[in-house]
Amino acid sequence: MSAERAMKEGLDLATRSQIAMLATVDADGYPNTRAMIRMENDGLKTIWFSTNTSSRKIGHLTANPRACVYFVDFEKWMGLMLVGEVEILRDAESRKRLWRKGYERYYPNGVDDPDYTVLRFTARRGRYYHALTRVDFEL
Amino acid sequence: MSAERAMKEGLDLATRSQIAMLATVDADGYPNTRAMIRMENDGLKTIWFSTNTSSRKIGHLTANPRACVYFVDFEKWMGLMLVGEVEILRDAESRKRLWRKGYERYYPNGVDDPDYTVLRFTARRGRYYHALTRVDFEL
Repeated sequence: MSAERAMKEGLDLATRSQIAMLATVDADGYPNTRAMIRMENDGLKTIWFSTNTSSRKIGHLTANPRACVYFVDFEKWMGLMLVGEVEILRDAESRKRLWRKGYERYYPNGVDDPDYTVLRFTARRGRYYHALTRVDFEL
Repeated sequence: MSAERAMKEGLDLATRSQIAMLATVDADGYPNTRAMIRMENDGLKTIWFSTNTSSRKIGHLTANPRACVYFVDFEKWMGLMLVGEVEILRDAESRKRLWRKGYERYYPNGVDDPDYTVLRFTARRGRYYHALTRVDFEL
């Protein structure tokens, strides 16, 4: 499989996935994986999430922005691993962009709630998996 | 939710999951996540996988045994994160223990195929997620 085909199939997988696994590195050097709702993406290069400012991952990413975003389709044996850095965004434009109806339940102070934070992941490289096929690509 | 309850629900999730996400740390310090078939487990403390000796994760784990095993049920909003170390096992007993019918397709030389390797993950601590609940525990 060509890198172009792998990136196309990987983008299809990412776009139809509501959930992504975000891995960070904790203060003791262990990777930490958790499921996150994929909010928006711009191709495979940029993926946005929102999270609680008080969450443990914010501490990890403040100390070490290196991260992995992984999408998986268990039934089709497809996976997409993206590796890059996460920026923690607190500007008004990003906050408004990611804000969704119903978020008041989680952030009672609205879009300016100090516990509401936006994460922007920028991928450097990726690997697409389909059954026994693995294809690496740069981004 | 008590730690005991979280560990019980987490074990239920792990035991019914055929797939786990294994995260390692690569030579550049980035976490790398991929789906793996969960082969066996002994409670939450020990989880066995098998893999190709030539796979990239073996290089990561040889240099840095720190790893994360993550189980997820997307429909039920449940997740289990376990953090610990992976040992790369090449002894005959472990190889025989993890060998499964049909592996000859992937490892033509059988149970002694040099590309067949067993991984044993030992958890130090965990976090169980269910909807907005998060419970940490030591192992």
